[in-house]
Amino acid sequence: MHNYERREWHQVSVSPAQTEKTEVEKLKIKVINYSKTSSREWEASTVKECFIPEEASTVTWLNVDSLNNIGLIVELGEHFGLHPLLIEDVITPEQRPKLDESEDHIFLITRMLRLSEKTSAIDAEQVSIILSKDSVLTFQERPGDVFSPVRQRIREGKGIIRRMGSDYLVYSLLNALVDNYFIIAEKIGDKIEDLEEELVTNSTMRTIQSIHAFKRELILIRKSVWPMREVINHLETCGSELIKRSTNVYLRDLYDNAVQVIDAVETYRDLLAELIDAYLSSMSNKMNEVMKVLTVVGTIFIPLTFISGIYGMNFSMPELQHPWGYPLVMLSMLVTAISMILYMKIKKWF
Amino acid sequence: MHNYERREWHQVSVSPAQTEKTEVEKLKIKVINYSKTSSREWEASTVKECFIPEEASTVTWLNVDSLNNIGLIVELGEHFGLHPLLIEDVITPEQRPKLDESEDHIFLITRMLRLSEKTSAIDAEQVSIILSKDSVLTFQERPGDVFSPVRQRIREGKGIIRRMGSDYLVYSLLNALVDNYFIIAEKIGDKIEDLEEELVTNSTMRTIQSIHAFKRELILIRKSVWPMREVINHLETCGSELIKRSTNVYLRDLYDNAVQVIDAVETYRDLLAELIDAYLSSMSNKMNEVMKVLTVVGTIFIPLTFISGIYGMNFSMPELQHPWGYPLVMLSMLVTAISMILYMKIKKWF
Amino acid sequence: MHNYERREWHQVSVSPAQTEKTEVEKLKIKVINYSKTSSREWEASTVKECFIPEEASTVTWLNVDSLNNIGLIVELGEHFGLHPLLIEDVITPEQRPKLDESEDHIFLITRMLRLSEKTSAIDAEQVSIILSKDSVLTFQERPGDVFSPVRQRIREGKGIIRRMGSDYLVYSLLNALVDNYFIIAEKIGDKIEDLEEELVTNSTMRTIQSIHAFKRELILIRKSVWPMREVINHLETCGSELIKRSTNVYLRDLYDNAVQVIDAVETYRDLLAELIDAYLSSMSNKMNEVMKVLTVVGTIFIPLTFISGIYGMNFSMPELQHPWGYPLVMLSMLVTAISMILYMKIKKWF
Amino acid sequence: MHNYERREWHQVSVSPAQTEKTEVEKLKIKVINYSKTSSREWEASTVKECFIPEEASTVTWLNVDSLNNIGLIVELGEHFGLHPLLIEDVITPEQRPKLDESEDHIFLITRMLRLSEKTSAIDAEQVSIILSKDSVLTFQERPGDVFSPVRQRIREGKGIIRRMGSDYLVYSLLNALVDNYFIIAEKIGDKIEDLEEELVTNSTMRTIQSIHAFKRELILIRKSVWPMREVINHLETCGSELIKRSTNVYLRDLYDNAVQVIDAVETYRDLLAELIDAYLSSMSNKMNEVMKVLTVVGTIFIPLTFISGIYGMNFSMPELQHPWGYPLVMLSMLVTAISMILYMKIKKWF
Amino acid sequence: MHNYERREWHQVSVSPAQTEKTEVEKLKIKVINYSKTSSREWEASTVKECFIPEEASTVTWLNVDSLNNIGLIVELGEHFGLHPLLIEDVITPEQRPKLDESEDHIFLITRMLRLSEKTSAIDAEQVSIILSKDSVLTFQERPGDVFSPVRQRIREGKGIIRRMGSDYLVYSLLNALVDNYFIIAEKIGDKIEDLEEELVTNSTMRTIQSIHAFKRELILIRKSVWPMREVINHLETCGSELIKRSTNVYLRDLYDNAVQVIDAVETYRDLLAELIDAYLSSMSNKMNEVMKVLTVVGTIFIPLTFISGIYGMNFSMPELQHPWGYPLVMLSMLVTAISMILYMKIKKWF
Repeated sequence: MHNYERREWHQVSVSPAQTEKTEVEKLKIKVINYSKTSSREWEASTVKECFIPEEASTVTWLNVDSLNNIGLIVELGEHFGLHPLLIEDVITPEQRPKLDESEDHIFLITRMLRLSEKTSAIDAEQVSIILSKDSVLTFQERPGDVFSPVRQRIREGKGIIRRMGSDYLVYSLLNALVDNYFIIAEKIGDKIEDLEEELVTNSTMRTIQSIHAFKRELILIRKSVWPMREVINHLETCGSELIKRSTNVYLRDLYDNAVQVIDAVETYRDLLAELIDAYLSSMSNKMNEVMKVLTVVGTIFIPLTFISGIYGMNFSMPELQHPWGYPLVMLSMLVTAISMILYMKIKKWF
Repeated sequence: MHNYERREWHQVSVSPAQTEKTEVEKLKIKVINYSKTSSREWEASTVKECFIPEEASTVTWLNVDSLNNIGLIVELGEHFGLHPLLIEDVITPEQRPKLDESEDHIFLITRMLRLSEKTSAIDAEQVSIILSKDSVLTFQERPGDVFSPVRQRIREGKGIIRRMGSDYLVYSLLNALVDNYFIIAEKIGDKIEDLEEELVTNSTMRTIQSIHAFKRELILIRKSVWPMREVINHLETCGSELIKRSTNVYLRDLYDNAVQVIDAVETYRDLLAELIDAYLSSMSNKMNEVMKVLTVVGTIFIPLTFISGIYGMNFSMPELQHPWGYPLVMLSMLVTAISMILYMKIKKWF
Repeated sequence: MHNYERREWHQVSVSPAQTEKTEVEKLKIKVINYSKTSSREWEASTVKECFIPEEASTVTWLNVDSLNNIGLIVELGEHFGLHPLLIEDVITPEQRPKLDESEDHIFLITRMLRLSEKTSAIDAEQVSIILSKDSVLTFQERPGDVFSPVRQRIREGKGIIRRMGSDYLVYSLLNALVDNYFIIAEKIGDKIEDLEEELVTNSTMRTIQSIHAFKRELILIRKSVWPMREVINHLETCGSELIKRSTNVYLRDLYDNAVQVIDAVETYRDLLAELIDAYLSSMSNKMNEVMKVLTVVGTIFIPLTFISGIYGMNFSMPELQHPWGYPLVMLSMLVTAISMILYMKIKKWF
Repeated sequence: MHNYERREWHQVSVSPAQTEKTEVEKLKIKVINYSKTSSREWEASTVKECFIPEEASTVTWLNVDSLNNIGLIVELGEHFGLHPLLIEDVITPEQRPKLDESEDHIFLITRMLRLSEKTSAIDAEQVSIILSKDSVLTFQERPGDVFSPVRQRIREGKGIIRRMGSDYLVYSLLNALVDNYFIIAEKIGDKIEDLEEELVTNSTMRTIQSIHAFKRELILIRKSVWPMREVINHLETCGSELIKRSTNVYLRDLYDNAVQVIDAVETYRDLLAELIDAYLSSMSNKMNEVMKVLTVVGTIFIPLTFISGIYGMNFSMPELQHPWGYPLVMLSMLVTAISMILYMKIKKWF
Repeated sequence: MHNYERREWHQVSVSPAQTEKTEVEKLKIKVINYSKTSSREWEASTVKECFIPEEASTVTWLNVDSLNNIGLIVELGEHFGLHPLLIEDVITPEQRPKLDESEDHIFLITRMLRLSEKTSAIDAEQVSIILSKDSVLTFQERPGDVFSPVRQRIREGKGIIRRMGSDYLVYSLLNALVDNYFIIAEKIGDKIEDLEEELVTNSTMRTIQSIHAFKRELILIRKSVWPMREVINHLETCGSELIKRSTNVYLRDLYDNAVQVIDAVETYRDLLAELIDAYLSSMSNKMNEVMKVLTVVGTIFIPLTFISGIYGMNFSMPELQHPWGYPLVMLSMLVTAISMILYMKIKKWF
């Protein structure tokens, strides 16, 4: 009863993850199973291999870090009782972050941001998280994530994570995502400070282009982070039985953090807009300065050159013979120049 | 009891569809009737021909793809029990998308967008959809639509569409419309990326004019898409008995998609505004560069030309005879030029 | 118990309508009385002449199209049981559209817009409408209105208007007003398209001044239309017994139309702002082009002129006698010119 | 139990009213006591002198038009049972308009605006109004107010004011304030029209500076008027027993007026922003025109001057002796000039 | 059961307060204990030393003005029953102001602003306030605060502070913070007035740079002050039993003040934006003036210089010998100059 018919156009523009068919066989589910006292990790390639008969108190985290084995994803989805539309959302990248709640599970679509060190470009990856009673299922578009501290804590039994249930694991994952937003926001903040200084001391064409490029990136980040806030808020207030009351205080704190990230992004946008305005003001000022110099030089010397041009003509002018001719012409030039300068003084050009 | 009196002015500016009177006789209702097991298609020219006595489980979709046979439209409207005002809305193009709910039917006005491949212009067409218990009635302004995948699935019995009722058919139609918005949004996104690169590498007057034209188009798209979101939300939450609970999850998903389209449109608008700002910054920068070169050249050479002009005058100046005259004048020119350059260095012009 | 004390300042700036005292005697109430089967029209100059004893099913529409006989207006107001503050609102032009509901009547202040064909200027006139059980009272500032289609339908018994009550008459009047907004919006839309084309092909100072003038006009239209929407919504939802349920569907439709007008006005404003931005971009571009030409010409020829000026000096320079002097100077000029052009090529000026 | 500790910083920046210690002794309370049939006025310098034993139906209005006798203000405040925080609000200027309701009284902070005729500067003064059952207490910062029409009506028994209670007096005072806003808004509107014309016909630096100064003033007016609207709305909807039902209709009307003022202010801001944009467009246009003329002249004559400069050099050039030399040089100049002009024609410079 | 795992990245960028490990031993808790009749102050270095067995009516205020002894902070937090997440918030700077309410305590994160006298830079410090039944606990990042007036009043028994409970102490602290915002806002307002005058009379590059720097600072202040308003509103409306009804009126007043600060900040932002616009208008105007002068001079003299250049050529032109040659050339120059000037007059350049 699957409904793969819906977004036909997506099949035209196949996502990169789906083209690398050669890696299909490599796809494995990374499983972490833990209880208060111990944790185990293994890789599974079928749904059956993921679960081991065990006492109720363990939590199983299944992580799939590629979307190229659609068969397996569908199988996992069905095991968790996901609606076909949700399975489709998992395998379609660039979904808006959202939350879907049912009796058995909570389905979350989230965004993982990555800041490329070299190009300062922000890269967004979709992470789907499914929370059920005893297990958490996560799908990523590509291997590599920001969840290593969470794994570390499970392995080493640090903190309270092994004592809490699957809802706390989801909180930990969301927290890792939002913390990563903070790191990115902080780095952007640092770069804005650098740009602010560069603009004052040594601005080049490149400086202003970086500022504009940053502003475009913030527009894209905002598009990712804004709905994340709604998702976290919805998770906290939905009142599902899957979220224990003890976890709610953590979600409230997480929500505060998400709001803080959005605040920072908005503030950075305002600051960048301000920097651009300041740059344009200073450009306008510099242009004025430059034009003034040209105008001063031109206004004084062009008329003088004309006067000298007159007496450079090869007519036999009577003035040329007059003994006072040369000094008088020079004097008239001086008078012209001084009156020009006085005019400019009155106009307050300098 | 018809009320055709209302919008008199529309009769002055008759819509193109109504002028082609010659095609009136061609107007047919395209009927698709389907049940779980089979589907039939035919063309009807009267209301009577549209319905065939059959068991209750079939769904009939009547599609009218032209508005020039008003008589037939009125007849169909009356058969479905539409209020005269609604029939008028059907035949008046450029209505705002809206939803009207009554006991027997749900009446929707929607927008179908088309992106002309050649001119990149967006063209909007009004599609009216009437949902009743066992049938769906659709009106388009012109032949040609985005519903072929829906027809295909009905014919071939793919997916769940034949097992579901008329409400699912309406969902499928709306879904086809919104999917089409996605395709258009994606194409615009691609073009914006092209423009962004063009602006950096090889911007001409044409580049910036395209950006402005695109921004105007996004203003028009937004006007179409924004009320569509409200219509879909209203359809999901109206609680009509015509919408089965099993369809509601699909409508929720559709609503998420509509929000995503709006997000994309808003983001593109911000990006285009940013591109224009970046262009203006770079223009201002270039202008400054150009003016600086002119000013540097002018400031250095205009006074020098004046000096040379003085000694070009045909007075019998004593300096002309002096053996050191020529070298001293040349030296004074050099000093003038160097002091000008030093001044500019101090002013940090280069 | 009248309270004419309130807005003293209005007595200072007497409205034009009140200055033409000479026309006072001409003021008449235009009365239309109609029932299902017939309609009668006459002019009355006292309140008494307006009503004729008749069976309950008739509707009387009293129209006063001038505000200069305040005595008669007060008399009419009292006959309808209007609060003194409302009578004052009637005679004070430029009120904000609003609705006031009491047990016996509904009082509406609305705006009638007129587009001067010659100057494209929008002119707003206040129309007050009072709905009571069997009659409708309207006040205009000046003769001439947009209600002739309504009168025509009453006279000729077209449509359902004679079968419906006074509430439907109010709807018809409001509908005529909103339809007129549509006509104006459409005309503005046409003019914007003209301006858009003019801007691209043959923009003069006048073009951009028209765009700015239009934008100012839209600001004024918006101020009129925005509160009209609230008034119509309030009328639909107020639940007064004066509004029959059968009329409500018409009011809902009217509200949709008002929203559509506002949408159009807002879209036009965005489009005009965009046109201005596009104009400024193209100005900036053209300016850059012009400056580049001046700079290229100046940068190449000003130094060359200086060189020629040196050898125009009347010193007895040794170079002048040298047989290679002239060709070498010409060569040095050529080298200077070519290096300048190369520099500009590197800077990508052309 | 007074709490004068709160805003310590205000004691640093003492308000002007508090510095004129010499006038302390002059401070009097202006009392107006009126009933249906009569009115009395006197000045009191203690609280005791303000009230005279009388039948219940009189209203007493105490007006203090200076804030320099804090002792008396505190005494009055205590007599009316004001909380120390409210007394502090009375004597601290530049409070935000607000309403505080208790069982015995309603406390209002409002703004009185004054337009200086000479400088067109807007000056805001704080007016505190306390309404209790039989009396109204008002505090102003400085003598001189907009309440004279109210006083006039009480004295002469015009209108309904003497028949109504203290709540109607408060309405009358608020109405006088809002009417004054209207006068100011109207004057600003007139000035904007003047500026609009001035900008088109004869704009100088001063015109645009006035527009900017006006826009700054509207920012300040908006800051005053916006919270007034909330205060009036709150007064109407608070449901206090001090406000009689018959007064509510007046408050509703007052609220409509306040909204209308805000509308006007916002519209004026938009109009001024539009005027500035229009000015900048026209500046940009003029600049372009001016630059074009310079460029045309420079582009044609600078190369020609160079050619003439060549043949002004004192080399013994063979061309100089050639009989066709002079005409050919003149011809080459003509060709150069014409080709320049053609280039510009192609570029559509004129 | 502490959860220090959360924000790992913060350990990378250690806050300055945590680096000064040498001062750890100096950290003391400043304790003030007071009742209606007396007050005592001492320094404690353990939690035990902070509390003395006493009758119920005393209030204890513990102030920690450095964050470098995390152990002590954790100990204090546990004594007050704070959730580990809240303790973490205390030691992590740059949290968004927020309120967390539990049965035993109310936890507030607030911002203390400081305006550096020298650089006009705003510096924000986080102040955490924990209110419990008989005591208030405050954490600052650095020594030095704006609470000295509060301390003074406790010591000297001025005002009502000693008679009220711990909730009034929290109000007094918040009030001191908001009053400080007012002082800063007032200082900024003064500087804006200075800048406004400087811009008109004697604007330099530095003036406009200061305006831009101020605008960036207001963006940062707004980020701090905006959530403070929410915190205060939440505190007033949360209905906790820790807030007595008699304190609520003070909180309401405090909220009004916070709104007023925000109003001021927004108004200042608008004013600064307006100043920048005015500056750019005047720049554009000046540039136009300057260009006009250059163009006038260039347009008149460049053609004249060309004419003189022609007759400076060393050809044997017949005109040179003609007796009327010289006067005619001079005349033609005059005619050229006058026609140029007339052209400019027509174009209304001066």
